[in-house]
Amino acid sequence: MNERGADALVRAAVDAGVELCFANPGTTEMELVAALDTVGMAAHLVLHETVAAGAADGYARVSGRPAMVLVHLGPGLGNALANLHNARRAGSPAVVVVGDHASWHLPADAPLTTDIDALAATVSTSVRRVGAASDAAATMAAAVADAVGPPPGVATVVVPQDAAWGEGAEQAAPVGRRPPAVAADADSTDDIAAAMRAARSPALLLGGVVRRAELEAAVRIAGATGATVWADTFCSVLERGRGIPAPAVVPYFADRAIEALAGHDLLVTAGTRPPVAFFGYRSVGRSMLAPESARHLVAAPAGWPAGPALQALAETLGGGAAAAPRAPEGGPTTGALDPAVLAAVVAGALPEGAVVVEEALTSAGSWPDAEAGAAPHETLRLTGGAIGDGMPMALGAAVGAPGRRVVALQADGSGLYSPQALWTMARAGADVTVVVCANAAYRILEVEQRRTVGPGGPTAASLMHLTDPTPDWCALASAFGVPARRVATGEELAAALGRSFATPGPALIEATLR
Amino acid sequence: MNERGADALVRAAVDAGVELCFANPGTTEMELVAALDTVGMAAHLVLHETVAAGAADGYARVSGRPAMVLVHLGPGLGNALANLHNARRAGSPAVVVVGDHASWHLPADAPLTTDIDALAATVSTSVRRVGAASDAAATMAAAVADAVGPPPGVATVVVPQDAAWGEGAEQAAPVGRRPPAVAADADSTDDIAAAMRAARSPALLLGGVVRRAELEAAVRIAGATGATVWADTFCSVLERGRGIPAPAVVPYFADRAIEALAGHDLLVTAGTRPPVAFFGYRSVGRSMLAPESARHLVAAPAGWPAGPALQALAETLGGGAAAAPRAPEGGPTTGALDPAVLAAVVAGALPEGAVVVEEALTSAGSWPDAEAGAAPHETLRLTGGAIGDGMPMALGAAVGAPGRRVVALQADGSGLYSPQALWTMARAGADVTVVVCANAAYRILEVEQRRTVGPGGPTAASLMHLTDPTPDWCALASAFGVPARRVATGEELAAALGRSFATPGPALIEATLR
Repeated sequence: MNERGADALVRAAVDAGVELCFANPGTTEMELVAALDTVGMAAHLVLHETVAAGAADGYARVSGRPAMVLVHLGPGLGNALANLHNARRAGSPAVVVVGDHASWHLPADAPLTTDIDALAATVSTSVRRVGAASDAAATMAAAVADAVGPPPGVATVVVPQDAAWGEGAEQAAPVGRRPPAVAADADSTDDIAAAMRAARSPALLLGGVVRRAELEAAVRIAGATGATVWADTFCSVLERGRGIPAPAVVPYFADRAIEALAGHDLLVTAGTRPPVAFFGYRSVGRSMLAPESARHLVAAPAGWPAGPALQALAETLGGGAAAAPRAPEGGPTTGALDPAVLAAVVAGALPEGAVVVEEALTSAGSWPDAEAGAAPHETLRLTGGAIGDGMPMALGAAVGAPGRRVVALQADGSGLYSPQALWTMARAGADVTVVVCANAAYRILEVEQRRTVGPGGPTAASLMHLTDPTPDWCALASAFGVPARRVATGEELAAALGRSFATPGPALIEATLR
Repeated sequence: MNERGADALVRAAVDAGVELCFANPGTTEMELVAALDTVGMAAHLVLHETVAAGAADGYARVSGRPAMVLVHLGPGLGNALANLHNARRAGSPAVVVVGDHASWHLPADAPLTTDIDALAATVSTSVRRVGAASDAAATMAAAVADAVGPPPGVATVVVPQDAAWGEGAEQAAPVGRRPPAVAADADSTDDIAAAMRAARSPALLLGGVVRRAELEAAVRIAGATGATVWADTFCSVLERGRGIPAPAVVPYFADRAIEALAGHDLLVTAGTRPPVAFFGYRSVGRSMLAPESARHLVAAPAGWPAGPALQALAETLGGGAAAAPRAPEGGPTTGALDPAVLAAVVAGALPEGAVVVEEALTSAGSWPDAEAGAAPHETLRLTGGAIGDGMPMALGAAVGAPGRRVVALQADGSGLYSPQALWTMARAGADVTVVVCANAAYRILEVEQRRTVGPGGPTAASLMHLTDPTPDWCALASAFGVPARRVATGEELAAALGRSFATPGPALIEATLR
């Protein structure tokens, strides 16, 4: 085959299993856009690149496959950085394609010229630059392999426009996947088993993609060793619900986490690393949350699938099947909405197999307990702390898991970072129910403020309240073509959820929290 | 004075003339936020950092002063990058303050940790890191001096949280401004005068901040030498209107610009650099727009104020005052809206002293002619090509030029990059009239597509049309508390403009283009 570089590049992506892209292209991507039609790759237009990056993250978390993110030069990549950062922290595979100026045009330092490679390096496992049409396919194939891993990651390909329009491209040889499953820097099953048996108070910490298989293996390990099973504060994917073992979750605030983990003399990590504080608090004065004296062993490194290592460990330890956990008592589901009522109502209504994208921060305080009693589902959380990935991830999850309902539990402040996601949900007919937890504040920041500098003055208050005016989420949804409804009680929320779950396509529910 | 690092830093900014900040802070900025109240610096909350960066750009263009942009860690800076890029290309002064983790927390690679310095370097004149409370004030004072220039630019200060909460800060010694006015690498007035007299077809190209004084000096120079006065395609500020000399504007498309500039044997640049193509087109095959054979002399380098050099040149050449230019014929102002009617109606209604922020791209094709006949005003354009700075700049311009009406001529696709600016306009009561040129397409991209790869397939079309659904700008404005109205004719537009100009605070007019 002898074709244009752009065609060869998109073909190589499709051949490597990349089915679609989330895109906001510009002039330097015109050949790549044309190639989508020539080769046959589906594309979803986004109104801001942060949506593309977050959607690729959500798509990858539910499907395990990378999507392509197509952006325009350095500024387009810059707009995507925050959610690429979250994807990187989630260990989600993604292939970012950045169109660049023609190579001969770069020395002119045209208005849109920036240091794309420096930007990409801050979020990427690998940054590759296509040299000419002839290597476009091979470069893309290598990038997809980088993205898939293990460990998976964000792989960026920079495509100078003259390489995209150049002819004489060659087909890519398939890139052999690297040997999977066992990472070189993991400790041996026997060593871990011996250490867990010997430990006084072992902890088994799960992170990354944590589904029923990992949780059931962990519970068997715990049964044999007395270990406490912990999950990271923010897992990429955590399967939850009735009949699924529920791990303890490492608390968000460093002081509480240190207290919770105190006493463990052994930490075994599986798919994650030893937990660190989200922020460095003056009053806490340290970063590591587990006791310094605890020994650390690695069942599976961060980013690596933990299932095989956990199953091997469970078999070595001979732990039996765990009893099904008892579902916690449900809280009240009626009356004025607060975070507890909201969580109980959503948990009660959730369809089996749903995907919950939780970026509700303080409003989700009751969710981990509530969701334990819900129908089995998966919850995706904010892994990198860069707010604004909730609705983009929900879009991507709906595209990546057709037939499953996606429920986005969305803080209002964070949601206002990427409301444009609603438009692509509407256009794609994505089965997403956005529940906006509308407290008209950056509430988490008020809590952090109290814990750090104490009560603030009027300027500080003005920076934490989303009032004067309070954004109208129903109008916002309507602007982007998503039907919306405002609710203030548990009963109204239940009715609105029921209507949305029975109706294909997206809906937004503005839940006014008292 | 012996205070906390954060207080000393904000006080140093205020002492150096920084009056306010556009902010979206997080936990690592809590001490800096507290310092705003302690020291007394005004702050405008933005719902996304791209608004903060664009607002600082607009503020600087109209006031000549830097604003502070306060953002949270690397992801906050990443969100601001596109509009910081535009500010950099505009030569606008701005001071970006990024809160970082406590220095002892960085090695833990906490979830929000990224390479802030690498990100900042892509858009900044200088990147400084506060080492401890003791140097916070001096670092800030130096950064403000960097920002002010000449040449002005984006100066970034990274503030580790332990430096912000640390005590024992010292007051900053005032930073002596560098000697102004004449850049070392400018050519001498006498050399330029001699070359212009000797040239067959000299061109005088103005860029950056171009006000009446620069234009009148340029016309005197042209009168004495026969030079053609050109302005950059995208000036940072260009004063326009009745009685103000109107330069020719370098066309946007490279082939047309090359044709327009052909024949010049001398290029004198003032406040800018030799013009380069926005994109590297295969069919054009070169980057530089002026003839290769033309000699190039520098009256004032890019970013430097050109006024003094131009006035010296005009006096040396002895050019007389130019006759007032004839205002062009106004176009039709009634009937269905198209770009020509829209431009004519806005030009007719514009109050004297208005600030026009033009990010209307294809819909603004008629604006340069129309605005020549309007009341005297200033127009700010998209200098860096990163779309989405129109409404943020309009917000900043309104804050920086109180009492003047700001009119944002806003393309719909670009506007959807930063609709959050509307909320801060509403909260600030900013006197901004946003005219959305609603053609429901990335029309410029369709034009570029035709000129590069030819007509596209259905996927390409889906990436260029803002339809299915078409965003509802009136609902969007209403969501953010800005009153809005949809118009479809020149008469309706004129009425809506009149109402907005007579009413303090923001308004949005969705102008449906046929």
